Amino acid sequence: MNRQRLNIGIIGAGRIGRVHAETLAFRVPEAFPMAVADVNHEAAAAVADRCGIPKVSADYRDVLNDSSIQAVLICSSTATHADLVVEAAAAGKHIFCEKPVDLTLARIDKALAAVSKAGVKLQIGFNRRFDANFARVRQAVASGEVGTPHRLHIISRDPAPPPLAYVKVSGGMFLDMTIHDFDMARFLIGDEVEEVYTAAGVLVDPEIGKAGDVDTAVIVLRFRNGVIGTIDNSRRAVYGYDQRAEVLGDKGSIATANCYPNQATVSTAESVRRDLPLNFFMDRYTESFASEIRAFVEAVAGDKPVPVTGADGRIPVVMGLAARKSYDERRPVRLSEIA
Amino acid sequence: MNRQRLNIGIIGAGRIGRVHAETLAFRVPEAFPMAVADVNHEAAAAVADRCGIPKVSADYRDVLNDSSIQAVLICSSTATHADLVVEAAAAGKHIFCEKPVDLTLARIDKALAAVSKAGVKLQIGFNRRFDANFARVRQAVASGEVGTPHRLHIISRDPAPPPLAYVKVSGGMFLDMTIHDFDMARFLIGDEVEEVYTAAGVLVDPEIGKAGDVDTAVIVLRFRNGVIGTIDNSRRAVYGYDQRAEVLGDKGSIATANCYPNQATVSTAESVRRDLPLNFFMDRYTESFASEIRAFVEAVAGDKPVPVTGADGRIPVVMGLAARKSYDERRPVRLSEIA
Amino acid sequence: MNRQRLNIGIIGAGRIGRVHAETLAFRVPEAFPMAVADVNHEAAAAVADRCGIPKVSADYRDVLNDSSIQAVLICSSTATHADLVVEAAAAGKHIFCEKPVDLTLARIDKALAAVSKAGVKLQIGFNRRFDANFARVRQAVASGEVGTPHRLHIISRDPAPPPLAYVKVSGGMFLDMTIHDFDMARFLIGDEVEEVYTAAGVLVDPEIGKAGDVDTAVIVLRFRNGVIGTIDNSRRAVYGYDQRAEVLGDKGSIATANCYPNQATVSTAESVRRDLPLNFFMDRYTESFASEIRAFVEAVAGDKPVPVTGADGRIPVVMGLAARKSYDERRPVRLSEIA
Amino acid sequence: MNRQRLNIGIIGAGRIGRVHAETLAFRVPEAFPMAVADVNHEAAAAVADRCGIPKVSADYRDVLNDSSIQAVLICSSTATHADLVVEAAAAGKHIFCEKPVDLTLARIDKALAAVSKAGVKLQIGFNRRFDANFARVRQAVASGEVGTPHRLHIISRDPAPPPLAYVKVSGGMFLDMTIHDFDMARFLIGDEVEEVYTAAGVLVDPEIGKAGDVDTAVIVLRFRNGVIGTIDNSRRAVYGYDQRAEVLGDKGSIATANCYPNQATVSTAESVRRDLPLNFFMDRYTESFASEIRAFVEAVAGDKPVPVTGADGRIPVVMGLAARKSYDERRPVRLSEIA
Repeated sequence: MNRQRLNIGIIGAGRIGRVHAETLAFRVPEAFPMAVADVNHEAAAAVADRCGIPKVSADYRDVLNDSSIQAVLICSSTATHADLVVEAAAAGKHIFCEKPVDLTLARIDKALAAVSKAGVKLQIGFNRRFDANFARVRQAVASGEVGTPHRLHIISRDPAPPPLAYVKVSGGMFLDMTIHDFDMARFLIGDEVEEVYTAAGVLVDPEIGKAGDVDTAVIVLRFRNGVIGTIDNSRRAVYGYDQRAEVLGDKGSIATANCYPNQATVSTAESVRRDLPLNFFMDRYTESFASEIRAFVEAVAGDKPVPVTGADGRIPVVMGLAARKSYDERRPVRLSEIA
Repeated sequence: MNRQRLNIGIIGAGRIGRVHAETLAFRVPEAFPMAVADVNHEAAAAVADRCGIPKVSADYRDVLNDSSIQAVLICSSTATHADLVVEAAAAGKHIFCEKPVDLTLARIDKALAAVSKAGVKLQIGFNRRFDANFARVRQAVASGEVGTPHRLHIISRDPAPPPLAYVKVSGGMFLDMTIHDFDMARFLIGDEVEEVYTAAGVLVDPEIGKAGDVDTAVIVLRFRNGVIGTIDNSRRAVYGYDQRAEVLGDKGSIATANCYPNQATVSTAESVRRDLPLNFFMDRYTESFASEIRAFVEAVAGDKPVPVTGADGRIPVVMGLAARKSYDERRPVRLSEIA
Repeated sequence: MNRQRLNIGIIGAGRIGRVHAETLAFRVPEAFPMAVADVNHEAAAAVADRCGIPKVSADYRDVLNDSSIQAVLICSSTATHADLVVEAAAAGKHIFCEKPVDLTLARIDKALAAVSKAGVKLQIGFNRRFDANFARVRQAVASGEVGTPHRLHIISRDPAPPPLAYVKVSGGMFLDMTIHDFDMARFLIGDEVEEVYTAAGVLVDPEIGKAGDVDTAVIVLRFRNGVIGTIDNSRRAVYGYDQRAEVLGDKGSIATANCYPNQATVSTAESVRRDLPLNFFMDRYTESFASEIRAFVEAVAGDKPVPVTGADGRIPVVMGLAARKSYDERRPVRLSEIA
Repeated sequence: MNRQRLNIGIIGAGRIGRVHAETLAFRVPEAFPMAVADVNHEAAAAVADRCGIPKVSADYRDVLNDSSIQAVLICSSTATHADLVVEAAAAGKHIFCEKPVDLTLARIDKALAAVSKAGVKLQIGFNRRFDANFARVRQAVASGEVGTPHRLHIISRDPAPPPLAYVKVSGGMFLDMTIHDFDMARFLIGDEVEEVYTAAGVLVDPEIGKAGDVDTAVIVLRFRNGVIGTIDNSRRAVYGYDQRAEVLGDKGSIATANCYPNQATVSTAESVRRDLPLNFFMDRYTESFASEIRAFVEAVAGDKPVPVTGADGRIPVVMGLAARKSYDERRPVRLSEIA
């Protein structure tokens, strides 16, 4: 290679680690995937082979100790994120960490403190901010195109619930799934939420209820600036991955529709129809995954602020804890009650 | 006229009285508008002239005392509805009464008792049930096309707030505007609401707040059958009258879009655009006004049950009072707390 | 009735006669349907009963001889139109005549001469000009919203072919069906066609071919002003009545979509779909039928020019004859070759 | 690199050469861009630098003489295509050649004969076949989803005319622009065209007319199987790149809409609008460019038939010549008149 590239190490070679590795290998000429580590060495090797990554290891410390590496992507399981952030910061690496940083505020705060102390950059993997649709909504709000915002409505429904085993360790729907929507709410409105109220239930699968979680929810958000937000979550929309947002302001509204595999409409004697929306989050958000990694590389290479900060990683966890508390106590809960 | 028609008297010759008179005159061959009364005699005379109504009066008693008249439409101001229902029932007339019957439950109950005692029919003017879009949503739910319902979302936004003078006597947004949505929620889901939670504010016009009312609201509805409903209200959507509904069930969803004056799309160097949605409720709901009157005439002429009963007129008032209480006390309120 | 109304006689109580009678009875307060005549007296009587028309006859001369009648609607079969126009003109009646005036130019010219000599008004029943969608396209062209027009594309497909018996007497698809599109082309562009080229075939039903007609066609129109038009005709679109138009100009384009019974979209595990478009021309063009009659009444009552003239009735017949000649001779045909 | 890759040489480092080079470098792990040649050495070097291509030359013969290279992409100017195909075939390279192979049939036939004699593979760069929208239309036709096809309508409008200098050497609109649509017509219907009729004019820019070309056209296609096709071309659609197709069959229709940068709709007091369609063919067809190269690599690596053959490259040129002859002589022209 005859150009200066940012050498990056990848910790975790699961689904999202593989996606980020491919982005680095094939779509970000300014970066180079130098190493990949996973306790499952075979998984790491497969990713390395696919993406032309020279160094493979079963031990993430081989990545952290590699002085040729300037930044790491933490793509391992959630429980390991906070400790890895602390260690990576101590090793002087810039950090891209998948969401959530952790499910407990104490561990998040410890991680953020380590980052702060080390003076490295930390970007959180809220990829949806980089999706063309949501970015367009943000632009309409930020530019004043729809005026002062009054209402925000986010629809976020999965095509099907995750396996029950995952549900049990996920931290619950509010921290596993709604966390993306909490981030999106803050991003789209550009202000902070003060109070949440949750109406939720188990309508999709009783087993989810037995595991102590919910599968259907409405969360009402009261923003500091008066905006009233609503998040509509379901673990199962049989027609596909339903991801939309609408903002009403005093000069108009902006609303996004879903993304489809094609723009074809078939008209027959029965109906006028189109194929189902993109069904898998990897397809729906393909470009946003690439864009967030590009943004991270640019921030590190250009020594610019990251677009999704550690605080952006912390607040949605506070909101998730408040949403659950509201559901448990059947009352509105202020975020200040949580942290 | 050489056919048997149902003779109907109209009490109140304001905007909605005129619409119903035209429907009777021009679009329901089975009925005949025999008389119209309004304290403003000139208004009554104008309607009579336009619609070929033989009898005109400034006194509604002339209508009630007319033995050739079998049914009356009560289209006067809200404050007079309950008493007129009582008197019309006593006169043995079948009754179509505009919503709301009254803003207090005691007076509603008195009116319903009078109707019950007299054995006449009473239909409440929730016209939106007869709109092709909302009727299609109801059909999808009732037929199982979208399976067991989990979520209901109603968007109901006016193009502009009413005059402040009206706001002050309207009973507040929840009883004046949301009352239609409370009816729609019960109609679409086919079940009763047990609890409401209101997040609301004054975002459109501070004068509305000074008058003690709100102009922007989200009301969360908890149905007996587990469905979670949300109503999105605003007194001002600058792009027009925004009236939509969506139901998510375990077999799919159904969602309606707004109605437009035409199906044309203009593409220029600036944008791809269409004309604004129908802006005025009389245009948007033209057909539904005619259909509800037809349904009333059919119920009376055929001695069949009316499609919107007195109870259907009472419950939305309970919901409106609960919604206000929830707003005032910042907590979920059960309908059983109200009545 | 206490108002001055225009008394109108209706000749022909078939489907379209009945529609116009209902419009006059129920939707045009300025007019009054005074008489209806049909060789099928029973049909005339049924319309009279439905619409409160005082005079019924089996003989159209009873209408023409009625001095209380100022205008007539000619809704009888096509073969009778030209003679009835001549007789009505001689009787001094203003005339609304269903399209086509006739299938031969000589008879059309005789009818137009009679109208001209009598000094009465003649409006031709090209109702689609009054449809909100096509009117919006015309407005975009006339106002310059899409700039100087370059291209016109009209899609006009029937849900199903007419009965074969009708096909045989219809004058052929170009004079029976495309005639509406020829009128629409002239109306939308506001200029005249000089040359047509037809590519057509029998793809829907071989019986139509045996009857000497075609069922699928593309007609290319060369306008005087350089615009290139195309008309897409089919006798069978299984999904419904397909009626659309698009104009491309140097500042943009305008395109219309079909009309649907509702704005609901159903999403299931199979597809995202909506109900079929309005399937029947009476439903699709309901409002346009009423509007054209209103326009006729206004033109007569206010002594203003009619919006669709005798010449507008003649030219589409020339175009239809040219389209057929082009099909027969497999070459472009100039209208000047016809007449 | 530790995997077996197909080594490919790229001849021509202009816009399309660069796109294909990036695809090979970043999106097709099974291939490797080994060399790039361009008479403009600087352009070739820039592409090599961007894509990590080891060998750079100003002489295409360096590519053809490189025994490590198994296949070449011919991305140079049209006038050089045919000779390069002949030389590449003689060198035993598999060939991907941009469209058109040439503007004269004699030279195309010479090139195809050379390919045939050498026994190498030749794929033509009709990328649009690989677009998700058009592929979906083809699927609907091929699978019988819309039944036996009757009508095909292709809209293909550029956002703006090319520079006049290019117009003069382009071979004319029919061979430069419509050629894609001729290919698309054959692809979508899966049958051959027998006759074309062209209505065309100079409506966009008189300078184009002075250069002997047209800028607006309708081409009517008569297929062997009776389908009637229409192609709508314009050199300027101010709203963007307009690329649509519709097929009507006896069981229904399929129609594609344009592609947009996002799915957001903005509603204000003026209009309900969305951003303009993708404006640049590179954006609109990004994925199709990658897919066609992947298909070529798969065909060569797997020794399978290429999806777009030399004959597929020849026939659209015949159609383009016939379309021009039809325009010049103002009559339908059979393809058998051309070749």
